[in-house]
Amino acid sequence: MDLLNKTIKEIGILDNGAMNEAQERLNNLLKPPGSLGKLEDIAKNLAGITGKIRNKIDKKTIIAMASDNGVMEEKISSFPKEVTLSVAETMAKGISGVAVLAKHAGSDIKVVDIGIDGDTNAPGIINKKIRKGTSNIAKGPAMSKEEAVQAIEIGIEITNQTIAEGAELIGTGEVGLGNTTTSAAILYAFTKGNLDELVGRGAGLTDEGLIHKKNIVKKAAELNNPDPKDPIDTLSKLGGFDIAGLTGCYLAAAARRIPIVIDGFISGVAAVIAVKIKPESVNFMFTSHVSVEPGADAIKFILGLDPMLDMNMRLGEGTGCALAFNIIEAATKMMNEMGTFADIGM
Amino acid sequence: MDLLNKTIKEIGILDNGAMNEAQERLNNLLKPPGSLGKLEDIAKNLAGITGKIRNKIDKKTIIAMASDNGVMEEKISSFPKEVTLSVAETMAKGISGVAVLAKHAGSDIKVVDIGIDGDTNAPGIINKKIRKGTSNIAKGPAMSKEEAVQAIEIGIEITNQTIAEGAELIGTGEVGLGNTTTSAAILYAFTKGNLDELVGRGAGLTDEGLIHKKNIVKKAAELNNPDPKDPIDTLSKLGGFDIAGLTGCYLAAAARRIPIVIDGFISGVAAVIAVKIKPESVNFMFTSHVSVEPGADAIKFILGLDPMLDMNMRLGEGTGCALAFNIIEAATKMMNEMGTFADIGM
Repeated sequence: MDLLNKTIKEIGILDNGAMNEAQERLNNLLKPPGSLGKLEDIAKNLAGITGKIRNKIDKKTIIAMASDNGVMEEKISSFPKEVTLSVAETMAKGISGVAVLAKHAGSDIKVVDIGIDGDTNAPGIINKKIRKGTSNIAKGPAMSKEEAVQAIEIGIEITNQTIAEGAELIGTGEVGLGNTTTSAAILYAFTKGNLDELVGRGAGLTDEGLIHKKNIVKKAAELNNPDPKDPIDTLSKLGGFDIAGLTGCYLAAAARRIPIVIDGFISGVAAVIAVKIKPESVNFMFTSHVSVEPGADAIKFILGLDPMLDMNMRLGEGTGCALAFNIIEAATKMMNEMGTFADIGM
Repeated sequence: MDLLNKTIKEIGILDNGAMNEAQERLNNLLKPPGSLGKLEDIAKNLAGITGKIRNKIDKKTIIAMASDNGVMEEKISSFPKEVTLSVAETMAKGISGVAVLAKHAGSDIKVVDIGIDGDTNAPGIINKKIRKGTSNIAKGPAMSKEEAVQAIEIGIEITNQTIAEGAELIGTGEVGLGNTTTSAAILYAFTKGNLDELVGRGAGLTDEGLIHKKNIVKKAAELNNPDPKDPIDTLSKLGGFDIAGLTGCYLAAAARRIPIVIDGFISGVAAVIAVKIKPESVNFMFTSHVSVEPGADAIKFILGLDPMLDMNMRLGEGTGCALAFNIIEAATKMMNEMGTFADIGM
């Protein structure tokens, strides 16, 4: 709990002076003011984060949390739980979706076993297993509060280490069969929203499967009855170790003033939890794409962040972050390399 | 007219066999079917264009057409017409928006003077000037039919040459003060749509300026009364040399079976004209981002193409293409480098 509390305390506010200076430069660049849209927003926000108006991103890392979820007993997925381990191994081998797209983006990837229900000796998977999957949220809490804090602190440690190694941009990823169910349950507990707008087909459920999944989400939220004002209570009762680990990533990146990118639905829920723990952490986050999962809209509203990409993607893993990295770097190039009206004597 | 007719005749259909084969590989990749969304659509479409399911894009070029528009006399822009020449020069110098983003994307850029109202000896600007700007569409036709064909054929020639030099992906760009007015006038002539949904603020008009621009668009379309079934008639009466040149780029890329990316509003109108000249040309096009210009929606409906990026951008120049290039390349990497279920013994 010490590391978590220390990290929360270290999260500051954006550097307004740098943002104003960035805005001034943006207005002087060779273009109608505002015409590069979100590229300009990104550049300004980066200035607020780093305190510098010219930023250069050399080292990027996607941190992917892998874990299993006890709620898989309820048959809420069209795939078996063994897929979690398989995908984590393909990530480490460099042949999964995020591995290929991260390589394309010039990004490293760290795959963290934070609770896979299986043993792996695959090189490249970082072993931080808390236990072999959470408990079934349809029958009781997913994990203890202590385990939730432990998982958050694992995310903090990995992120701190990644930043110490030189990462200037962090992406979030995950794999964990059943984690659209746990994510939807957390969002439902926080928002008491319409289940149709929060629960989606995940990896590809049938209509019947989707109805069943909604019932399980509702049952889990009602049975565990978390306090929606207490994000760690909600996380521990309904979450997964992957979500908790990513929550720690966001908090650590914010504390270290390093930009961090939200991938899709699950990493978005982790971002919501981080923001409920420390509202200022939102200022250090960027969103990548609009996930196909219906709950992605609720996350967008809660965080007030507007995605850059509209790709109909729903793979997770961190694939959206890999694509967003190129755009964030484009924003830095715009800021660093574009000419100004003064340069051409206007 | 010979080159145009020859090019139109050379435009074929997509390779359905290659697309089916691509779909089969996509279904076998390590992910739920369809979960990489538009990346999968792009990869499949590339297979249909090139006939190969594995594509590699080494050389990319953005072709930017620069020209002036006589309708600037009507004060439909918040900037003076001299900006066209200035921006073309900054493009060639490598300090404009598209120049910086093209470099980031590893793309070449060709800046073509197809009708700038001014003289430039700037190195890097290709001189294909037809004349010093079109005539004022609020008073008569922008150009003769012969000039429209000449401009289209300039686009074809430049694109053919670019492809002969090895380009495997083409982007479209433009600069031409007043070209959101000419573009809106063409769209209005084609669709007889609501002016509010077709005419936007361009580089940044006031409310009053926007009302005036709508009146000019309506007046130009009514006065010149083009035949909406004759795209070259419509183009010559209401267009610009930039739009006509880009129309040629799309037709040539389709004839050579090279993918070509639409940037924003103006290049989108040129794409609409190309598709009205030869409907099959649409199969060789990709869209990049959702332009802020309201008419971008009409273009999306006409072409049936769904943008990848949602960046609130409205600079033009080809800036959206530069960002889209990275995503199209990501789609090729997905196809070439991701593992299959067979690879992991599933």
